[in-house]
Amino acid sequence: MAFTLDQRLQNDCLHVCDLSLCRVLLMNDCQYPWLILVPRVADIAEIIDLTEQQQQTLWRESAQASRVLQSLYSPDKLNVAALGNVVAQCHVHHIARFHHDPAWPAPVWGQHPVTPYAEDELAATLDKLKLAFNPD
Amino acid sequence: MAFTLDQRLQNDCLHVCDLSLCRVLLMNDCQYPWLILVPRVADIAEIIDLTEQQQQTLWRESAQASRVLQSLYSPDKLNVAALGNVVAQCHVHHIARFHHDPAWPAPVWGQHPVTPYAEDELAATLDKLKLAFNPD
Repeated sequence: MAFTLDQRLQNDCLHVCDLSLCRVLLMNDCQYPWLILVPRVADIAEIIDLTEQQQQTLWRESAQASRVLQSLYSPDKLNVAALGNVVAQCHVHHIARFHHDPAWPAPVWGQHPVTPYAEDELAATLDKLKLAFNPD
Repeated sequence: MAFTLDQRLQNDCLHVCDLSLCRVLLMNDCQYPWLILVPRVADIAEIIDLTEQQQQTLWRESAQASRVLQSLYSPDKLNVAALGNVVAQCHVHHIARFHHDPAWPAPVWGQHPVTPYAEDELAATLDKLKLAFNPD
């Protein structure tokens, strides 16, 4: 079966780019710089459902996402998490956290309602992220 | 500088075993089967502060921890997360989640006070885990 992005991820996020394994999404919540990596493989819920080679690629791309967040936002801490209690499709959150962000030091999930980006801020953020993932 | 386990992790967890890179800890909370992997490297906060080779080893050992939880507990979902907002030392949570667990579907952090294992249950759980990580 072909890979299809989960409907909830599609509703909550914007497409940044596709890496060799993962689709990179921006969570539409301006409270935190928040990327989600989704391996483009059908019917995968757990990271260990991926082949060993796919897992290696996932974590290389995860490190790239972490470095992009570090270089663009200089966060106090990165949160990297594969939970999937609500959205079953395997996906890995990468969130740039700050001592002054609304949820600190708690995890971000379920803390505060999502605050979507303003339209121009969203376009600028997507441009910045696309450039950071594809520097050529 | 030599690796020293963070004091809070030491207080909240029990030692299961040492893998080639990581110390494996059992969180002393009987509400969820909950392992924490701590790379035995001094002064590391972020996964991407590890060398590329150490990261590869970390994720191999993480997959091993996930498989141990799956084989012993058959959870509905695995949660794998490196947060570190409270304990700065790099560590990766591996939590076996169930539809009937106290926090489901929310993440476990900050949901319910920790419920320590009874003494005999703790000893049995540690024995079972040590065996699962070191089958020889």
